Order: sequence, then C-alpha cells, then structure tokens
Amino acid sequence: MGSGGEGNGDGKEQNMAAWLVSVNTLKIQPYQLPPLGPRDVRVRMKAVGICRSDVHFLKTMRCAHFVVKEPMVIGHECAGVIEEVGSEVKSLAVGDRVALETGMGCSRCRYCKGGRYNLCLEMKSFAAPPVHGSLANQLVHPAELCFKLPDNVSLEEGAMCEPLSVGIHACRRAGVGPETNVLIMGAGPIGLITMLAARAFGAAKIVITDVNDHRLSVAKSLGADEIVRVSSNMEDIDEEVIQIQKVMGADIDITVDCVGFSKTMSTALNATRAGGKVCLVGMGQNELTVPLTPAAAREVDIIGVFRYKDTWPLCIEFLRTGKINVKPLITHRYGFSQKEVEEAFEVSARGRDALKVMFNL
Amino acid sequence: MGSGGEGNGDGKEQNMAAWLVSVNTLKIQPYQLPPLGPRDVRVRMKAVGICRSDVHFLKTMRCAHFVVKEPMVIGHECAGVIEEVGSEVKSLAVGDRVALETGMGCSRCRYCKGGRYNLCLEMKSFAAPPVHGSLANQLVHPAELCFKLPDNVSLEEGAMCEPLSVGIHACRRAGVGPETNVLIMGAGPIGLITMLAARAFGAAKIVITDVNDHRLSVAKSLGADEIVRVSSNMEDIDEEVIQIQKVMGADIDITVDCVGFSKTMSTALNATRAGGKVCLVGMGQNELTVPLTPAAAREVDIIGVFRYKDTWPLCIEFLRTGKINVKPLITHRYGFSQKEVEEAFEVSARGRDALKVMFNL
Amino acid sequence: MGSGGEGNGDGKEQNMAAWLVSVNTLKIQPYQLPPLGPRDVRVRMKAVGICRSDVHFLKTMRCAHFVVKEPMVIGHECAGVIEEVGSEVKSLAVGDRVALETGMGCSRCRYCKGGRYNLCLEMKSFAAPPVHGSLANQLVHPAELCFKLPDNVSLEEGAMCEPLSVGIHACRRAGVGPETNVLIMGAGPIGLITMLAARAFGAAKIVITDVNDHRLSVAKSLGADEIVRVSSNMEDIDEEVIQIQKVMGADIDITVDCVGFSKTMSTALNATRAGGKVCLVGMGQNELTVPLTPAAAREVDIIGVFRYKDTWPLCIEFLRTGKINVKPLITHRYGFSQKEVEEAFEVSARGRDALKVMFNL
Amino acid sequence: MGSGGEGNGDGKEQNMAAWLVSVNTLKIQPYQLPPLGPRDVRVRMKAVGICRSDVHFLKTMRCAHFVVKEPMVIGHECAGVIEEVGSEVKSLAVGDRVALETGMGCSRCRYCKGGRYNLCLEMKSFAAPPVHGSLANQLVHPAELCFKLPDNVSLEEGAMCEPLSVGIHACRRAGVGPETNVLIMGAGPIGLITMLAARAFGAAKIVITDVNDHRLSVAKSLGADEIVRVSSNMEDIDEEVIQIQKVMGADIDITVDCVGFSKTMSTALNATRAGGKVCLVGMGQNELTVPLTPAAAREVDIIGVFRYKDTWPLCIEFLRTGKINVKPLITHRYGFSQKEVEEAFEVSARGRDALKVMFNL
Repeated sequence: MGSGGEGNGDGKEQNMAAWLVSVNTLKIQPYQLPPLGPRDVRVRMKAVGICRSDVHFLKTMRCAHFVVKEPMVIGHECAGVIEEVGSEVKSLAVGDRVALETGMGCSRCRYCKGGRYNLCLEMKSFAAPPVHGSLANQLVHPAELCFKLPDNVSLEEGAMCEPLSVGIHACRRAGVGPETNVLIMGAGPIGLITMLAARAFGAAKIVITDVNDHRLSVAKSLGADEIVRVSSNMEDIDEEVIQIQKVMGADIDITVDCVGFSKTMSTALNATRAGGKVCLVGMGQNELTVPLTPAAAREVDIIGVFRYKDTWPLCIEFLRTGKINVKPLITHRYGFSQKEVEEAFEVSARGRDALKVMFNL
Repeated sequence: MGSGGEGNGDGKEQNMAAWLVSVNTLKIQPYQLPPLGPRDVRVRMKAVGICRSDVHFLKTMRCAHFVVKEPMVIGHECAGVIEEVGSEVKSLAVGDRVALETGMGCSRCRYCKGGRYNLCLEMKSFAAPPVHGSLANQLVHPAELCFKLPDNVSLEEGAMCEPLSVGIHACRRAGVGPETNVLIMGAGPIGLITMLAARAFGAAKIVITDVNDHRLSVAKSLGADEIVRVSSNMEDIDEEVIQIQKVMGADIDITVDCVGFSKTMSTALNATRAGGKVCLVGMGQNELTVPLTPAAAREVDIIGVFRYKDTWPLCIEFLRTGKINVKPLITHRYGFSQKEVEEAFEVSARGRDALKVMFNL
Repeated sequence: MGSGGEGNGDGKEQNMAAWLVSVNTLKIQPYQLPPLGPRDVRVRMKAVGICRSDVHFLKTMRCAHFVVKEPMVIGHECAGVIEEVGSEVKSLAVGDRVALETGMGCSRCRYCKGGRYNLCLEMKSFAAPPVHGSLANQLVHPAELCFKLPDNVSLEEGAMCEPLSVGIHACRRAGVGPETNVLIMGAGPIGLITMLAARAFGAAKIVITDVNDHRLSVAKSLGADEIVRVSSNMEDIDEEVIQIQKVMGADIDITVDCVGFSKTMSTALNATRAGGKVCLVGMGQNELTVPLTPAAAREVDIIGVFRYKDTWPLCIEFLRTGKINVKPLITHRYGFSQKEVEEAFEVSARGRDALKVMFNL
Repeated sequence: MGSGGEGNGDGKEQNMAAWLVSVNTLKIQPYQLPPLGPRDVRVRMKAVGICRSDVHFLKTMRCAHFVVKEPMVIGHECAGVIEEVGSEVKSLAVGDRVALETGMGCSRCRYCKGGRYNLCLEMKSFAAPPVHGSLANQLVHPAELCFKLPDNVSLEEGAMCEPLSVGIHACRRAGVGPETNVLIMGAGPIGLITMLAARAFGAAKIVITDVNDHRLSVAKSLGADEIVRVSSNMEDIDEEVIQIQKVMGADIDITVDCVGFSKTMSTALNATRAGGKVCLVGMGQNELTVPLTPAAAREVDIIGVFRYKDTWPLCIEFLRTGKINVKPLITHRYGFSQKEVEEAFEVSARGRDALKVMFNL
C-alpha cells in the first residue's frame, strides 16, 4: 500500500473507485472503505471485468428492476490479493489470491434456509443499488465470499468466475449432462460462457446460433459442435427450427436462450423436444410474444435463472483442471485511469469483436 | 339396443356412435367394432361426458394440432360395464363396472420407457384423429386401460376420471402438497376440477379467480378458500396481482392457469413468488404476450402439462375415499338420441351454468 | 450468576435451570443467561417436554456421538413468552407466545448454503454439548428461531413442534403424500408423531406395528388405519412381513422405522415394495444385521434423517388448522421443582403409558 | 433367408447353445429358436461375454432369487449381426451389427408405466430362469431391444454394453456428475466399469479400493485418480476410512460398493460425507452387519440398483465418442466349442488377471 495517501485502516492511501454518477458518466473518485469486521478481509483488486449489465447501468442508470438513485461504484466481476484479514478469519491469509463472490443472502429467510439464497429478497450484492460494486483499488468483503485461487489459475480467470457462474447455474437448473443435447441461442459473452459450462457438464452435443458470423466462428473455435446462423426476422422461425433440428441430428433436450427476445424464445420453444426444457437467461425484452400453449402441450418447461448460488468452488475447479478455458474470451485489457475506464466501457458497449473487456488494476 | 339380440360381430345388435361428420354436425350412425383381441374387453358404455375439446372439434373440426379429416366418433370421458373379455384377460370379468383410460403409448420409445407415456409420439387415444372416440353404445378397449370401480363410485363418477386426471397430472407436475399455497386462474370445469385435485393433494390454501361471479360462487361452494373476481382487461393486471396476493395472505407457491390467455398468464407470472411455479393448463390462445424475462429473473418456472399418465387408480381412490366429490360438477344429463346429443353439445358450448354435461347411455 | 439473587435484565430474579451433572443426576441450579444481542430475544419458558434423547443423556451422559463432559442444561422441546427483545428485532414483541427452534447452522458451509443446514458440522443446538439446553426459567435465543404461535395453539403444543419436526422431516425426505401407503415401525412417541405427520401429508393408508398392545391401541385411536402386533424375535420376520403386507392390502411404498433394531429394519426392508423407500429414524442399535443386498436388488432405498430443517412454520400451520392434534400425546405434566424434575424423568424413562411428559414452568 | 442355405426352423442348420444342465455342467446342445414374430429379428451371435452371475449360476444353479430348475441356455452379454427381420420391423435390416438389450417389462404395470421397467415383476430377461440366455449361435429377439452399432464400435464392445449398463444405471441413480467425488469399493470387472462410467459422467475425482494390488494397478491404468489397498479385516475399517478420506482430499459425495460385504459397506457408510450417497451394486453377502444408524444420522442414503433401464443408446454413444474405452477390460477370448466354453468359464471363475472373458462365435 502506497505511502503518499490516506484511506483505509492506516490513513496512508486513498482508495479510488469508478463511480456511476449519471447517464453515460463514470468518474474515478475516492471511495472510503467500511471498517474491517472480524470476519472480513481487505482485498487489493487486480482484475475486474465489464459485464453487459454494467453497460446497461451506464446507459440508463437501471438494469432489470434495479435503479441507481445515488452515485454508485460500478463493477462486479473481480479478483484480487488479500492485504488484511479480520480477527476471526482463519481460512485466508495476507497474500492469498482470491476470486470474490458478489454477495450473500440474509441467511434467515425461506430462500436462504432452503438452499436458494440467490432469490433472497434482502440479498446484498455488488452493484445492486444501493450496494456498491467492485471496480476499485481495494474492497472490504466477507472472507466467506473470497475463494482462494490455485497457482495455475490467474487473477483474470478468477474475475471470470462471475460470468462463468451464470452459465453454471443455468446448466445446473436445466440439468445439462452427458445425456443432453443442448441448443444455445446467442453467441455473445454469456452464450459462449454457457457453452463452455455445458461442455464441462458433459453435454453430448452443443449447437449454437447467432445472427453474427464472426461470433459463430468464435463459438466454433471455442468448442461448439455446430453453429447455425439465424436472422432476426420472426418469419424465419419455422424454417430455422427445421434447420437447427437437422444440424443437431437428434432430439434437442435443453435450449438455453441467452438473448431473450420473442424471436429467440419462440425458436427455442418450437425447437426443443417434448418433455425438454428451455432455460431463459437473456433479458433482451421485458414482454415476449411466444407460442406458449403449444410448448406447454408438449411439456416443454421454461426454467428461469437469477444469478447463481454456491458456484465459485466449481468454477475454480473447472479452471484448475482445464475443463474450462476462459482465456480466449478476454479480448481487451485496460488500466484503471479515467480515460481508460471510459474507453473500456465504450469498447464493451460497442460489442463487435469485443467479448470480455478486463481492467488490470 | 335392438330387441332381437345382443352382441357385436354377430349381426344381432347394431352398435351406434356419435360421429363428427363436418363442422357443427354430429350424427348417430352405426359404428362397427373391431374384433376382440385376447387382451381386450368389450364395454357397454353407460356414462360419457362432454369436454371442451369435444366442443372445439365440433365447431372447427380441429383441436390443438389435431385435425379431423375423416368422420370420427367423438367423446373420451367415459365409463361402462364389461360385456365380454378376451381370452387372456384375467383381471376383469363380465359385469365389472369400469372407467376407461383414454389411450396408451407405443411402450418402446424414450417417453414410454422413461415414464412419460403421455408424450409418446405414437400415442393412440380416444378422439385424437384418426383414432375414434367413445360416445358409442359399445367399445372394444384394452383391458389394461379399464379400471374397475368400487361399489361406492358411480359410473358417472367413473367418466369423470378423465377430466379429473388433467387436474391430478397438473398437481403432480407442479408439486402441489401441504406446503404449497395455490392460485388457480379460471373457475370453469378444468379450473374447478384442478381445485378439487389440489385440495386432495393437501394444498395449504387455494385462491381461485374468474371473470364470472356465478362460477366463483360455485368455486367457493366446492371448497375454494378465497375467490377473486378479475376482469379481462390487460390494464388491470398490476392491481389484480396486488389484490390476489392480499387475499392469499401468504406467498403464492404455485399458480395453475386453466385459461391460457395473455392476461391470465401475465397475472400468473407476476403473482407467483420467486422460485415458485406456474403451470399452464388452459389453451385459450396460441401465442401469448407475457412478461417472461422478469419472471425468469425470479426463477418462476413455467410447467407444461399434456393429458395425464397413470392417473386412473388415484382418481378412483380419491373418489372412493371421498377426498374428491365430483358429483356437483355434473349439471346436465342427456340420453343418447340424435336430438339429445345435439342439445347436449349446444348446452355445453353455451357454458353459463353448465359445467359437466353427461350422457347416460 | 451471583448469590445475591439478581438475574437477567432487571437484576431481581435468579434464572434457574435443570443441569445434567453426572449419570442419573439432574440438579436445578442457577443458569446465567448470556447478554441479549441485538437480534436476540429473552423468553420466559412455559412448556418443556422430555425427549428420549434427554433420558439417554441422563442415563449415560451421551447420546449418538454427543458426549457430556461438563455439566449441561438439559431439554430442547420448548415454548414460552417473550419478555425482552434485542435492538434490531422487529418481527417479535414482548408478550408474544413463541415456539423455539432448537438451533442454527453456520450459514456459510456447503450444507447451509445448499439448504441442508441440519447437517452443518458447526450446528449449535439445544443440549448438543457443549451447547446448553432449554429446561430453564428463561432463555436468550436468536429471534429468527422463535416462531409466534397463533391464538388457538397452546404453549404445550408449541413445545411439541420439536418432536413433530422429526416426523415432518422424515415425511418430507421420504416423499410421503396422497399416493403413498406408509408402514410405521414402532408406536412410541416418535412413531405416533410420524404417523400424525404422515396423515397430514395425505398418506393414502397407514399401518403401524409395535410389540405392545397398549401402544397399538393408542395408535389406532390417534388415526392409524391398521395396527399389527409384532414380536421382538428375528425368526418371526418372514411371517410378520406377510401379515403386514396383507393388512396393508396394497404395495407398501414407504416404511419409516422409528425403532432402529436389526429386527425392525429387516422387516422394513423385506416388506417395502420394489422401488420403495425405508426411512430410518429410530436409533435402537448402532450396528444392524440386515438383508441389505436383496433390498438393494429391488431398489429399496434407505433414507436417513437427522433432526429437521425449516419445519416450525409448517408444524404451527398443521396445529393451527387442526390437521394435526398433538394434545393426546401429552400424558403427564409436572412443575419445575427438583423433586418433580426427578419424578418426571423417571416416568418418561419407564415408558409404559407415558408418551410425552411435559413441564409447565 | 436364402433358399439354398441353412438356418433355423427349416432343418438346414442346427442352432447350438451353451446349456446349463446341472451344477458345474455346461453342455453345447441344440437350441430350437422360437418362430420369428413380426417385430422380432434373428441375430447371428458374434460376441458373448461371461458375467460373474453366469459363473454363480454354474456353480450353484442359482443367483440372487433366481433358481435354475430346468436346463437353461446361459449368457446375457452379447452382440451379433442381423440375419432376418420380422414383417413389421423397419428400424433394422439384414446385415446390421447390433448390441442386444437383455429384456423388457410387461409395459402395463406401475413400474413399466412409471419409467422403472427394470423393476417390473414380469420382466423377461436373458438367463433369468425360466427365460433362456444368449450364448448361442443364433437368437430371435425383439427388434426394439437390438441397438445398431456405429462403424467404429466393434461387436465385442457391443457385448460390453450390458456390464457397462450396470455402471451407468448406478451413476444415474446416485447422481454422479462434475460436482461429485466418487469412491468405488472393488476393482473387479463391475468396479472398473463403474469407474469408467463415473468418469464419463464427469466425476470430479475417483478413488478406488481393492484387496488386490494387481487389480488396483489395472484401475490406475484405466483412469482412477487414486487407489487404496484395503484388507478384508473388519478391524481395519476406522484406519482405512481415514486413509481413504485423506487420499480423496475432499468430501466423498458418492460411494459405490461393487463388492457387497459387511466390511465394504461399513467402510462405505463411514467414509461418505454427511448428506452423501452409498450405492450398493455388489452382492457379496445376503445379510450385512453395518453401522446403519450412525449413517442415517448423517443422512447418508443407501441407493439400490437392479440391472438398468434405457442404457444401450447411452452406452453406444459413450463407446462411439471414445468417452469410454472398454477394450482393455477384455482380457481373454475363446471360441464356441465344448472345450473352450468349459475353459473360459474356469478362467472367469478363477478371477486373478481375468477381467472380461469373451466368446467369439
């Protein structure tokens, strides 16, 4: 920790963070850390990724049902090195490299007691206003939410545990395994990461669709068995369903829609076999117009997912054993200056060849 | 039944059935029975109910993805008395009163082998064209699909096993039990019967909604804990959700939509608690416009149902023990003449105070 | 707590508790309460029941893998009235009548996060040494573990939530419902309470066995469909299995062994249908000699249960609605003096006509 | 079938089979095939493996609850080439190379309808007396039980689908996947094959135990992560549990006991983590003396397995993709003469370095 500043604990260094202050405006400003509780650790952030929801917050000051009313530190995909541990912390030590789970439930409600803490109504999670995010030099975080990285897993990979968790939670809820053929709609970052997760869960065959040829070629290079280019035109659904089923060459047991538009969900519902499942991950539209009753009449169930629960240990295990390689997803890297932060979000928002944009702090 | 004789195949008695010959036209005409196989029984029909899908067939010559291309005997809710048994039939005897399960799968496909024979693509079922239905004097049916009725269960109640099976299958798939509060959308015959099934499965609390006050009062008299009158206006959803939740006074764990319109499913998705389930039974519209992503983001899963599987024994047990009383649902009774058949379908189609219209043959 | 006679909160009253000090020796002695934390409540105990495990501790200073090394306050089935609430407690108020869940997990381990906090290795629970029990005038307990009783549920009934929870947890794990015929081995307190729970979960038919005619007649009066008197002789197993199956008159889907001897488990394994489940609740012997491979070859699974999780709300709901009536199980009542405590434990240990022995403090 | 040729039923070629006629006596004798039904195929057997149960039948004329009362054709692990197809068979053609599923249920009982046809009480399966087995030149078998082999899967591998099915069924029932660490007791053929199946299901880590160093070295070469040599001495259990847990280095989520003795099951129950599962596959002893209540008190469930259901397609897929390689398990090969049959069974019975003994017919 630098000698020149003031800040947390010893008053020497000023902790800086990227604050979302208004639409399209991020500012690097001081962020005073809370006192270190007995079960907390203080972490020096080293890698923080940009998520689509971060971009959404930046453009609109809201995401899903969350609204930013006060300036908020942004970011929630992160890893770092422990610099200080609370008095009761035994599982971690200064110098440990850790990935940070984003939040925790109340531990008392039906959801927490029932093993679905991600649904806790009092969940406190990075960048879910009014809770601050993690794009900062340092954070104070509960030790139980910090997971030690093995030597062969980098801090950037550690930061990827968060998006990877989304894919893993979807695979768990949908029941992906060696007996399931999986269709993934959308080859953006979440689609690709869901594909990697499905592969690690042993999916028999994976077909991925997108409107963009470049993304599809990336998907293919990352391990998709087959790719199908689709349009964004509703009238093409019937034809595309036939093509997708032909390319799969077998029943589609599970479809994961990582886009979330009427077009993609309609395709998903029609393409999936009777008794199969469609897992809705993408949030493209709020209201969707979809052929719901024909799907119900084939007992195609629709499975929702919200965040993840208890996924970090599995992510780290997948990364450690090489069952999942997230490195090719990291396409851009930036430092933590005002200018670079702005540029990084711009690149991430633009999409195109940018998959994961990562800050190295 | 003719005076001169009895029996099938020997030319003594001509078997008559109600044939759907064209839109809005049912005709009582001869129906030649197939030969009695070694595992078949010949049943003298005694009670046959009219289902909404029968009416739909009559009005449009189609229902769901089924299209009537050749004249077809209508009807599928039925019970009767065995008059003849095949050479290998040991479980049943002449004179046994039986309820008839409507169909069976191929026993070889993944669905049949996996315990979901209702999804069998080669399922042969009453009045699923080109398979004939059951509104006839006599039927030849596999013995394994005929379930003996106890003395205290009437033939009319036996015919009610079919619609009751729909409610039971929905309760099973959704997981209704003593720990679930259940919301039912729609107080028509299927809504009411789903309510009776949910009660028998031990549902903690049941609230039922409808646009019609009379139906709601019937629902209340049949055992609903609470009723809520709703409109058919999309703009009322938010307000109605609040009202429904208030009337429930607890989390809504499971909602069964027995209507199947954008309005009802939107209400269902918004009213159900995070982590709960919405079971879609009604088939009002093909395409629905619903807030699917917000529901998915609360992990409200949508469960489809198609017919039923292995439900007759449970239906009969519920009727025998009195856990379910279907008698109040039978509001109209008709004989089996051309005129009465026409009138019965007209009354059933009109709805209003008609719940279940039953033929006594 | 000091000799001068001050106690908790107001310094006026000395809190007394029943201490297990050595084999067969219980002493009523002062018990200093811990300070009231912000999320705690202070409860005036009103009803405390004696459990078989309490008796086991008294006779041997141990129970299962728990060993009493230091004097320990005994008791864990309890209810009382709130006298003081911590600064952050909002859900409860002074004067509220509450049943006390016995303990809670660490909220951080795989079990707690995964919805099985009863298996938490750091669980802190009443009378699980070194944690003290609840047979005391007053207790300080986390507010989240205190469940408010409705007006029509007495404090004694509230204390019964604990044993009732064991039955409910067994029914949940085994999957008791309207489609299951249940065999219960043992008509002692836990057997009877499991029977009441199975009834509330809608069990189709319940048969209960015991070696004691009086217990069986109690079981019958409390709602068992059928009773079967068995011996404790291993050689009678085959014959008794035949008799039990005959009395059930249908497949035995689930057997709950509330005794836990080689005899009862052998009977359970042989009597249960292929694909059924045997739930082992009783802990009569540590090592059992049982025909395990023939049972495995019929896919009869053996389900273990340990305590309960998230059961108090359901217990209270069952008591409130009258779906379960535990009052007939309370056969003896005592005050809280040294002499009465000794007598109460003696009566409970003797068994015979004593089912639940309750202290009214 | 050609006019000029030989075959069954027309007296040209006499079909021969290996008949179990009395204890320790197998005789190659004529075996008249039943007539070819419309949905049957006639298969020229090419590869038939010897199973431990075959040896057991040979030594004792019984296995589990099956007793050989009349001479019976032995064998049930087989593959061959189709020589004739029934009139209604469309999915297969003469010349197709197929693996044969051993049997089928009645398709009418609760087990068949419920997706657990392996438990059907009327199951007809190879070498389950009085049904004959498959060690014969030719068989007539239902087409639906014959699964076509891809070009890159040999007939010997096809015959291995049967034992592989046992391992797959165990993995399915126990829930093996990428989040489970698996302990396998016994490195005999079934232990090894269960290990291969667990690997294909994505098991995170697999430890295997045996009393025999050679078997363990084979297990290691076939992909076990770790091996542990154990004794057959009951007194070593505690120490071995500690060693096994240390070698696993993580919670043991699932243990599969492929031996079935008091020693192995006691070790399994004690070694498995709270909330884990022990799957009992081996049938070494009928009655086992095991610490059942301590296991139940940690909610370690015991899962039984009987044969398999709907496993052939998955086996073939695992073989086709190379996710499982069964070739190293085939250690001995024999022709189909009286002398070779006798020798083959002797070698198989002796065990030692013989894993799978295969006939090439």
